[in-house]
Order: sequence, then structure tokens, then C-alpha cells
Amino acid sequence: MAIKNAFYAQSGGVTAVINASACGVIETARQYSDKIGTVYAGRNGIIGALREELIDTSLESKEAIAALRYTPAGAFGSCRYKLKNFTENKREYERLIEVFRAHNIGYFFYNGGGDSQDTAYKVSQLSEKMGYPITCIGVPKTVDNDLPFTDNCPGFGSVAKYVAISTKEAALDIASMCESSTKVFILEVMGRHAGWIAAAGGLAANKEGDAPHIIIFPEIAFDREKFLARVDECVKKYGYCVVVASEGAQYEDGRFVADAGMKDAFGHTQLGGVAPALANIVKQALGYKYHWAVADYLQRAARHIASANDVQQAYAMGKAAVEFAVSGKNAVMPIVVRETSVPYKWHIGEAQLKDVANQEKKMPIHFITDDGFAITEECREYLSPLIRGEDYPPYDDNGLPKYVSLQNTLVEKKLKTDFKI
Amino acid sequence: MAIKNAFYAQSGGVTAVINASACGVIETARQYSDKIGTVYAGRNGIIGALREELIDTSLESKEAIAALRYTPAGAFGSCRYKLKNFTENKREYERLIEVFRAHNIGYFFYNGGGDSQDTAYKVSQLSEKMGYPITCIGVPKTVDNDLPFTDNCPGFGSVAKYVAISTKEAALDIASMCESSTKVFILEVMGRHAGWIAAAGGLAANKEGDAPHIIIFPEIAFDREKFLARVDECVKKYGYCVVVASEGAQYEDGRFVADAGMKDAFGHTQLGGVAPALANIVKQALGYKYHWAVADYLQRAARHIASANDVQQAYAMGKAAVEFAVSGKNAVMPIVVRETSVPYKWHIGEAQLKDVANQEKKMPIHFITDDGFAITEECREYLSPLIRGEDYPPYDDNGLPKYVSLQNTLVEKKLKTDFKI
Repeated sequence: MAIKNAFYAQSGGVTAVINASACGVIETARQYSDKIGTVYAGRNGIIGALREELIDTSLESKEAIAALRYTPAGAFGSCRYKLKNFTENKREYERLIEVFRAHNIGYFFYNGGGDSQDTAYKVSQLSEKMGYPITCIGVPKTVDNDLPFTDNCPGFGSVAKYVAISTKEAALDIASMCESSTKVFILEVMGRHAGWIAAAGGLAANKEGDAPHIIIFPEIAFDREKFLARVDECVKKYGYCVVVASEGAQYEDGRFVADAGMKDAFGHTQLGGVAPALANIVKQALGYKYHWAVADYLQRAARHIASANDVQQAYAMGKAAVEFAVSGKNAVMPIVVRETSVPYKWHIGEAQLKDVANQEKKMPIHFITDDGFAITEECREYLSPLIRGEDYPPYDDNGLPKYVSLQNTLVEKKLKTDFKI
Repeated sequence: MAIKNAFYAQSGGVTAVINASACGVIETARQYSDKIGTVYAGRNGIIGALREELIDTSLESKEAIAALRYTPAGAFGSCRYKLKNFTENKREYERLIEVFRAHNIGYFFYNGGGDSQDTAYKVSQLSEKMGYPITCIGVPKTVDNDLPFTDNCPGFGSVAKYVAISTKEAALDIASMCESSTKVFILEVMGRHAGWIAAAGGLAANKEGDAPHIIIFPEIAFDREKFLARVDECVKKYGYCVVVASEGAQYEDGRFVADAGMKDAFGHTQLGGVAPALANIVKQALGYKYHWAVADYLQRAARHIASANDVQQAYAMGKAAVEFAVSGKNAVMPIVVRETSVPYKWHIGEAQLKDVANQEKKMPIHFITDDGFAITEECREYLSPLIRGEDYPPYDDNGLPKYVSLQNTLVEKKLKTDFKI
């Protein structure tokens, strides 16, 4: 088997551990130098392939690549760019294959969610037809935890840990102050379509009365009166109320709670946010002193408090992807297969890209309690192992994490044409 | 010298390390059992003294007290309750002294900001006059870093570390995504009157072009056009723009930037937030895709990433307060005295409560660059040591910090009258 180069790209929203997968891919590929030549990385993801902007990772030192394991976000750049469907824009797929051919690339590792796995699958199909077969392997990644087949997605566990810890810490703060000050606290977290991340807030609670007292899931229609009644009950019973709300929370009729129809002084529609909208509802109806936080990117970039299990799995997925490739597999994606929750045991399995593409894993409804405001024991059992263990980055003498910045040197272009995207 | 009991209370907004000061007070008091009997803690701060709700800390184990060192927020409860001024409500001060006398309390340790030190000073004065002299020692605490005399306030360093790390992590996220997605990110941080916390975001930057690109200080009048020009410049030059904004940011005429005059669909005034207001300004004028986060309580409760120097100083202040008391000092507060920044050296000094009370330390204007958007080298030199070192809490098997919950047993009341506050 002739030596071929490899192409690796990061896709979609980045995570605290996507670079750990990159680290797994590159370090493992370097061990198979009899089969894999240079690993090129797409500058800003798949856009880098279309534009023929390929980063030569062989110019990065061993230490720099190792540091990817503890560096958050996308070290080569990522993108929100979904290739159009095949019939509509076959040209894009052909361009990818031309670029791959020009750089003797025989392996394509695509680190992303469902859309990306769809792209990887199509590339594997088309490249075959075009007479330049490329081994396409997916590497799972998404904070939303919505990929099918895999028990969980690398990236999710670290967000979950951040949200659980932040909920616990903020709750201690409110509990200290509630006698004379803030009584209601609302933390807004990510998850537009699924409540996985909001559910993780529930891990902060151990016993009756513990915060969070209310979780707002996108899966459960938001009922203003029921919400207010529960907030009031908690404040009266526990002295305070902590709410973890998913950004995707919506009313029965599909309107987003965040879309409160706000206008600023100039009549411009104002940017929403579930947390301020809920705080406003509480203030108008109950008058309690409130505070709210919106974690936004902080939650998915928080490598400083990443889950050790998540880091380990992210790395393992990258490593397995390369091992699959060199063992002759194609159009597959490594997945996490859970053996047991107690004790937590898992191994690496595989899923076919054609099955993964464009399927979404929903949160099972029995993971949410009947009142719609909390997680069940079964959910806790599922989530708990995912946030276990700490995997701290090293710190510099100034008290900041030593995250690596790669050189990201581009290789010379070989194609004569530019490609507009 | 007869053995007297001590009273310790937490006051105002809690911090990630105020319990470390409590730990310092209680552990040190236990070493001076020849002078100090039981340490009582106020349930919910000074309100606990007024209501005669005294927590008996002697019932807490050595391990539980030691765990305060790594537990955020106020373990005994805090309050926002400022005693009225002397002439207006002398009755409150007299009540405090009655309660202290009833429980043989001869030492008062008050852990708070400027207002609290004012109260402690007045108690020391009045108790003398009433023939029941009480040794009153302040223990400095505030995330706002606004106490005079002390080089910095315990509590601030940990918020500063959280903000610097969060800025650095979020910036890596935006940098990865900016080619095809979010170009402007705004992080809102605390600091209604002073820009110390926002300034800490500046520590994330090491070289030209590093995020944050813009810091919005409450000390500098917000100029919409200048802000927009700078955002646009950064996006064009670096591909993205990261903004750290103080909640207290205001226009020249004193209007808060957060107060964007927003109304919801029902015409109710909507809760503001500097970050969404700035995001809206960017969106309307420049159209860039934005994201924003509001750290709120997460920043001051984030014990998981506390500054080791901050924890050490918080403990040292509590310890010194007791040592001052047993050595016969009165109406003083231990302070941090910086010897040198490079290397960072400090020792404990003392300030008179009468001088501390009701003075605010402002951020020096030469800590802000001429353009009003960044910190100077001098500011960096001041701030940098305060966020150094990590002091991680222990974690349980489920991936969460093992923060302690005290029993908080109240002692029997001795006074016949209740006190309405």
C-alpha cells in the first residue's frame, strides 16, 4: 500500500476537547509513517480544503501537538459551512477530491457532528466513482450530544461538567444571600434543540431541596403559570430558587421564550436571551430580586475545568479514527459504547457513516421527571460518568493556562484555479 | 485576661474565598483557647446578631472548618444590611452590644467591605461608652477591590483569574469560528463603580492583536461611535473582536449603557445587561454576527479556579485579625502591603477602621490606556500577581467539587426580646 497523506478538518462549533481529538489523530498518524505521510489540516475546516488552504502539521513540534490535548477551541480553525446537497452542488465535492488528489491525500478525517459525517460519507462515495478512492473516517464531536449510535459525544462531557459546577457554585452564592437579597437565579445554557446540557445542571443536586430547583428543557413546552408557581414554592420553601434554562426553551405554540418581542428605545428588535426573559417574567409576577447569567461560549471553551473522561474519549476517538483508516476501514466513525454505568466502563465501537448522517439523538423523555422540571435517576446515572475526573491544563507563571498557538503554515497551492465559496 | 467568646459575621456580596477568611478566623481562634472561648457566627451576617441567631462553630469538626478554605460563598449566610447611621438608629447598635454581652462576646470580627468596617468601628466606639468594651477587628473582603489602604482585597484575585481565563478561552473559540461565523463576542463582568474586574480581562492578552481587543470601563464615558469604529477595525484587522465590558459602563451623561430603555411585548421595561445592549449596537451599525455572555454570580462563586494567592491572603487576613485581637489591638483591619511586584512579595499591615470606613479606592486613571480601551503595563504589573497560582478544591467521585455544608446549629437565645429589622 502506497503512502498517502491525510487531511483532517474541524467542523462546526468548537469544544473544549476537539483539539484533543486532533491530537489523537496527528500523534497516531505519526506512528503509522509507513502508511500515512503528512497530515494536512484544513484552515478553518472544510473551507480550507475547498480553498486549497492546507496547514502542514508536520512542521509542528511534538510538544506543540501534545499541547493540543489541553487547548480548547479549534487550533486550525473551524467553520459553519455545510456542503450543499449532491445534485445541487456536485462541484463542491469534486473540488474537494481535486484538492485531495493534487496533494496525494488518501485519508480524510472529519471531526464534527451529523452534517459533517454526511459530507464525509458523500466524499467517500464520490471519490470512489471518480476513480480516486479516499478513506473517509468521521471523528465525533458536538457539545449538543445529539449524534446517534455513540453513547455520548466528545465535547459534551466538559460542557456538562462546567454547567454542573457553575450551578453548584452559584447556588451556594444565592443560598448565602437570599435572606436579604437575591432570591431567584437563572443560568442560561446552550442546547437549542435538546436539553442535554440543561440536564447536566441537574447533577449539582444531591438531595431534596438542592439547586437547581427548576430545569427548563426545550423538550417540554414552557408553561408560564406552572413555572411561576414552582418558583414561588421554592422561594417559600427553601428561601431561594435556582433555575437552569436551555436557550431553546419554547412555548407550546413554538415561540421561543427568548423571543420576548423586545424593542429598544429606538424601536429596534432587541436580542433575546432566555435568562433575562425568565427573570422578567419572575419580576413582573412575583417581584423577587433576581440575578441571571448567560454562559454562552464560556461553557464550551472551558478547558480549565474539562471532564477527564471527556478528554480521554476525545483523544481516543481521534486515535481510533486513524487506526480504522490504516486497518482498511472506510466510511465509518468510532463511537463510545457504554458497557456499564456502575462502574463506568466503555469501549470503542464503530458506526457506518451512511447511518450516522442526518440523524439526531433526542433526549429520552423518561430522563425528565413528570413535572418537567428535573432529571430522573436514570438520567443522572447516564450523565454522571461523563463529567468525572479533572484534567487540568498546565499554567504559566502569570496564572493563566498555557494553551498552545500553532504556527499553522500553509503548503504551497498546486491547483491553478481558486474556488469561490 | 478573662476568656471571652468571639462573634464572626460575613457581610455583603459573598466571594469565592470569604470562607477561607472564616477558616483563618476560626482555626486561629481555636489556637488561642486561653483567650477566646467559642466563636459564634452570625446567621446571615449581622442580621444574625440583631436577631440573636448565633451559630455555634465549636460544634463543627476540625475537618469541616478546614474545608471552608476551599468552599465558595458564605457558609454562615451573609446579608445586604447596612446599619443605619448612629443618630438615626442607635437602637441597632445597642442591640448588637446587648446580644454580645448576653453571650459573653468580647471580640467582633467583621468580614466585609467599607460599610462593614464602618459598622465595626462604631460598635467599638459605642461598646466602650456603654461600659462593655468589645474588641472590633475588620477582615477585608470585596470582589470590587475598592477598599483603601490594602493593596488589594481578598475575593478580587479569584474573580480576576476567572475573568482572565474565561476571556482567553472564549477568545480562542471566536478565533476558530470567525471566518464563517461569530465575529464579535462580548463578555459582561461585574464592577458597578470601578473597572478592576473588567481590567482583569486584559490579562488574557500578551501581544498586539490578542483578545480582549476592547475593555469597557465604568471610569471612561462610553462613546458609541468610537466603540463601533474600534470594533470594525478589529474585525477587519484580526478577523474578530472580543470585548470585556463592565456592568457599570455609562455614557457621558451618566446613563448606564445597560439601560437601553427596552420594553417587552407587553410594554414592560426590560431588564438590561451591558453585553446584550452592546451586541445590539454592533448588530444595528455593523451587522456582524455576535455572541455575548454575562458571567454574573458565576464569576464570584468560581472557587474551582480560584487564585492561590487570593486564597492564601484571604486565610491570612482571617488569621491576622485574630492575632491582632489577642495581642490587644482594637478597631483595626489587617491589610495586604505589597513590597515588590517582581518578584511578588507582600506582608500583612494594619489600617485603622476609622480611616477605612466609607472610603473607596478608585482605579488609577493611568491604569487605562489613552484610547480608553485597554490596560497599561503598570496595571498589568499590579494585577498579574493577584491571579497567580491554582488552588483546586478536592472533587468527589461524581466529578463535582466537595464543598462543605456546615451544620450551623444555633445557640439558645438569652434575651427576652425579639428584634425587628
